[in-house]
Amino acid sequence: MNAGSRLQAEKVIARCRKLATFTEEPGRITRTFLSPPMRECHREIAAWAEPLGAEVRIDAAGNFRAYHAAAEANAPRLMIGSHLDTVPDAGAFDGVMGVVLGVALLEGLRGERLPFGIEVVGFSEEEGVRFNTPFIGSRALAGTLDDETLARRDTHGVSVREAIEIFGLKPGEIPNARLQGDILGYVEFHIEQGPVLEELDLALGVVEGLAGQSKMEFAFAGRANHAGTTPMHLRRDALAGAAEWITAVEREAQRVAGLVATVGAIEAKPGATNVIAGEARASLDLRHGSDDVRAAAVEKVIRLGEQIAGRRGLSVQCATLANQPAVAMDARLSGEIEEAIRRAGCKPHRMVSGAGHDAMILSEKFPAAMMFVRTPGGISHSPEENVRVEDVEKAIEAGMQLLDLLASSAALQTRRIHRA
Amino acid sequence: MNAGSRLQAEKVIARCRKLATFTEEPGRITRTFLSPPMRECHREIAAWAEPLGAEVRIDAAGNFRAYHAAAEANAPRLMIGSHLDTVPDAGAFDGVMGVVLGVALLEGLRGERLPFGIEVVGFSEEEGVRFNTPFIGSRALAGTLDDETLARRDTHGVSVREAIEIFGLKPGEIPNARLQGDILGYVEFHIEQGPVLEELDLALGVVEGLAGQSKMEFAFAGRANHAGTTPMHLRRDALAGAAEWITAVEREAQRVAGLVATVGAIEAKPGATNVIAGEARASLDLRHGSDDVRAAAVEKVIRLGEQIAGRRGLSVQCATLANQPAVAMDARLSGEIEEAIRRAGCKPHRMVSGAGHDAMILSEKFPAAMMFVRTPGGISHSPEENVRVEDVEKAIEAGMQLLDLLASSAALQTRRIHRA
Repeated sequence: MNAGSRLQAEKVIARCRKLATFTEEPGRITRTFLSPPMRECHREIAAWAEPLGAEVRIDAAGNFRAYHAAAEANAPRLMIGSHLDTVPDAGAFDGVMGVVLGVALLEGLRGERLPFGIEVVGFSEEEGVRFNTPFIGSRALAGTLDDETLARRDTHGVSVREAIEIFGLKPGEIPNARLQGDILGYVEFHIEQGPVLEELDLALGVVEGLAGQSKMEFAFAGRANHAGTTPMHLRRDALAGAAEWITAVEREAQRVAGLVATVGAIEAKPGATNVIAGEARASLDLRHGSDDVRAAAVEKVIRLGEQIAGRRGLSVQCATLANQPAVAMDARLSGEIEEAIRRAGCKPHRMVSGAGHDAMILSEKFPAAMMFVRTPGGISHSPEENVRVEDVEKAIEAGMQLLDLLASSAALQTRRIHRA
Repeated sequence: MNAGSRLQAEKVIARCRKLATFTEEPGRITRTFLSPPMRECHREIAAWAEPLGAEVRIDAAGNFRAYHAAAEANAPRLMIGSHLDTVPDAGAFDGVMGVVLGVALLEGLRGERLPFGIEVVGFSEEEGVRFNTPFIGSRALAGTLDDETLARRDTHGVSVREAIEIFGLKPGEIPNARLQGDILGYVEFHIEQGPVLEELDLALGVVEGLAGQSKMEFAFAGRANHAGTTPMHLRRDALAGAAEWITAVEREAQRVAGLVATVGAIEAKPGATNVIAGEARASLDLRHGSDDVRAAAVEKVIRLGEQIAGRRGLSVQCATLANQPAVAMDARLSGEIEEAIRRAGCKPHRMVSGAGHDAMILSEKFPAAMMFVRTPGGISHSPEENVRVEDVEKAIEAGMQLLDLLASSAALQTRRIHRA
């Protein structure tokens, strides 16, 4: 298999670029939940998987599923996949590559049957673009897709349920999309979408967990006043206070290992060039792999805001808009991915994903784990998103090593199989 | 006269509040250039000035003018005034009080004729609201109202010229609005619109000059990136850089006496809560009474921006949108105002006006000076704008003392009279 792996890697990249041509917007890559190009995408992947002996279907949530049977009946199943939808003006690899790599692994088996079946899944929805809510596809597999989500409407007034019908599927059959039987686990290959592996000069990473996230808004209030007639010492400038706080937040995040804190949106009111801001609102996105560390950081930035506001005669209010706990990946499966990366000749880097992934949803019910592939420049959600062919080659090798590891009778027999 | 001055002050305040009822927007005070309520305003002030023997006219630029003749023919003329237009949702005193005080001084003369005439002027336009350009009224008196300004159009497509015609005036007669003959000078009474006199517990101030102003825009550019996947040390966060610069600008302005620097508007791009800002634009309004100090401060804040950007791997570009030199008030006339304030029993505070005023335009051609009246809370351009009756009383007293001073033969004979 090794001899052909560079060719295989090139094929994976070419296939990702081929899928990128199925788009809602000519000249840009945009493919949202059950949009017409998603059908072409399914057809294309089916044309790759079926000749390998896989059994292909589209489930009622619009997920592409290709099943490679086990050596024996009633064997457990390993899920491998990622999502097929994209953000607007996307790159060719985010999500898509995890599905294409799954097919490449089936191909690498050259018809061999393992002690477990392999189901490659291409989720219909992860980015949350069309219905402003993410993970529609993976929630169907986890059995957590609720009626409220199905009733959500897109900007054209079409509901999730109607979108499923328009695509020619039956919303009533969504319960059949749910994973059933014995599940070994879920493995997701995904581009890192960040600069860490590149900075370390490493091809592949093992995702230990997905960071928890606090989304907040801080509103500083002072007094709007004339920019010309109000001396500096008599000002209560809300924007100057917010600015001091932004730099304090940044310093705090730099101090705590693994913490990321971002103020991405800011608004000053009245927002006129010749009026001292009476109000300034700043967003805060704060993430860490440990919920305790994150909670302490949230406390700290609130305290910093209060101290700065107090010293300046301002008031500050903060609102928590979302509070999403960290999610740990399955330790055993992650250890096996780590070993597989090592056997592929790479140094595995254990890391926390700062972004959400389908593995987060699957982990609620099954052992789930992820392998990250280096992302040049850390650039993602952009047409410039890319992968290096040698990294994809290593990912395929590591994937094959993982299948080998899992197939070793010891691994399989001592394992707790999840009966869905 | 002193016995009645509290009553006179109350009358001035009541008259300002009466003029405030002539508005374009019921429930708010809004009176722009030659709007219908301006006509009522003119009629009302005429009804106060004419019984005092003043000769009233509305000039072709829509300025209210009431002339109190001198004791002799061919005597020079002292101009006293301010503007009658307002910002939207204004207070009752900004501008208006300077005109009403002018009439109160005529009243205080009780028919007495001085060695100079007094013309009270209520400028038609100072705030720049309707045509997005200020000082239309005072520029007509200075002879600097150009065709370009007359051709400007409001949001309804009406030009300045047409607005003048619609009001029943003749744009062709604008040259006649220009000050002619011997002009002693222009004196403007105005609320401070800032908190300085209140902070010092003083009623009245002498304006030495009007601050020069630099209007700039600073654009910091870094790299937009995922807020979750980009570790702190690999970021090039444009907003964090702008925030550090804002606090540095504030510190610099606090360090230099008399300097005010304001960042009132800020924009981060893409401006999403979960994306590190790739670009941040901030306005800068920087003012000082000395153009040299202001130029040095501009240099300094540019250098600070470059240092901060350099250290953070950002770039910064700055654009100068306006650069208005400081304007000195006439030293002799200001000294006389200072002496008049002292004679009225107040401590005069010499100060620089951070805001622009009609006196700035008149000073291009004639000796001009201003007296500031304490503004409670420094609040202006707001319905909460107010004055204290005892301060208005002192302003009237100081005004009468000023007329007395100017009328003393020594002052008048040694004076250089400006022939327009």
